[in-house]
Amino acid sequence: MPTAAARGRILLVGATGLVGRAVHAVLAPHYQVVTAGPEACDRFLDLDDCASIVAAVADPGGEGWAAVACAAGLGRFAPLHTIAPAPMTQSVYGQALCNKLLGQVNLALAAREHLRDGGSVTLVTGIATQHTIPGASGFTMANAAIEGFARAAAIEMPRGIRINVVSPGVLAESPPPVFELFAGFEPVPAARVAQAYLRSIEGGQTGQVFTVW
Amino acid sequence: MPTAAARGRILLVGATGLVGRAVHAVLAPHYQVVTAGPEACDRFLDLDDCASIVAAVADPGGEGWAAVACAAGLGRFAPLHTIAPAPMTQSVYGQALCNKLLGQVNLALAAREHLRDGGSVTLVTGIATQHTIPGASGFTMANAAIEGFARAAAIEMPRGIRINVVSPGVLAESPPPVFELFAGFEPVPAARVAQAYLRSIEGGQTGQVFTVW
Repeated sequence: MPTAAARGRILLVGATGLVGRAVHAVLAPHYQVVTAGPEACDRFLDLDDCASIVAAVADPGGEGWAAVACAAGLGRFAPLHTIAPAPMTQSVYGQALCNKLLGQVNLALAAREHLRDGGSVTLVTGIATQHTIPGASGFTMANAAIEGFARAAAIEMPRGIRINVVSPGVLAESPPPVFELFAGFEPVPAARVAQAYLRSIEGGQTGQVFTVW
Repeated sequence: MPTAAARGRILLVGATGLVGRAVHAVLAPHYQVVTAGPEACDRFLDLDDCASIVAAVADPGGEGWAAVACAAGLGRFAPLHTIAPAPMTQSVYGQALCNKLLGQVNLALAAREHLRDGGSVTLVTGIATQHTIPGASGFTMANAAIEGFARAAAIEMPRGIRINVVSPGVLAESPPPVFELFAGFEPVPAARVAQAYLRSIEGGQTGQVFTVW
């Protein structure tokens, strides 16, 4: 087995969440994992703050990042009847579109020039993309856009760089209110979701959505 | 056959484009079609201007709109390597996300209370959602989000109101440069696309994407 240093460095965004911690556990034995997020991480990164994304991705060291992986992204649950038409800056959908969608898109764009040849970007969506629930229209919309972006960006990435999406089901480690919201959704352990990240990072596919449900 | 007045009134957004004119031709014998758009229409509507959307949808007359249908939405083609990370207001993706995506979402939200029971909303995307081409990442992303929104909103629409999406292929009536861009895509006549609008409006399905390709 190559040493961690030989396999290279990975930037993991959202390393402190349920998914992020599981991804970290899977990657740490084999890679040098650099964590990024709004707090308690090696580098400050806020998906709402484009400059912070650009800064966190810069300076990968050595030959460039082996991978940039994201397990972060904010949105808002809201029943459709409470959502009024509004421009982006005032829209209930603004958070999902600016943070979870455009934040991850910006991460992928910023990562391009700092990934080594054949490196990868892995973004995150969720089961609500295909199997929506009441109140999730913002997530379904933003997630679908993220998966669309990856499908499109995959054919234009330079130097063999790949881009995929991991779409987790409802996490088994979620707090109880989540299970009430997602009634009848089969929970999946975060450790299984982390394997999908590994598949994206070490596999050869690009433009794919790895569903874990 | 019921008279046009008996079948009701339809608000058609983007009535002056290739698709919009074909949709108008299909609907006009059977419905009172009220056109909306930035120019040469019965009502002013700019998808970038939320207030104009709300104003154009208001006052449907009688029992409410039988349907609100959209054949409009702007975005920008741009090679991925020219697109830099940027916040929404400065992003190359801003037009697709604010106009084509959020503009149509706002149209659907505004239409809810002015549609009659069982009325419908029909939005538009395009073949690049699934079959992308270089330079189309903004469209693929925004289109996927529109299709996701319709899938999610369908389960929360009140009073039996339905919402679907029409996804046209490359239009046979397009100017020649479009065929160079979409090499090998089988062109479809706008009249076929218009039939998909009719299927959305007069059928019973909701949350669906009617692909015309």
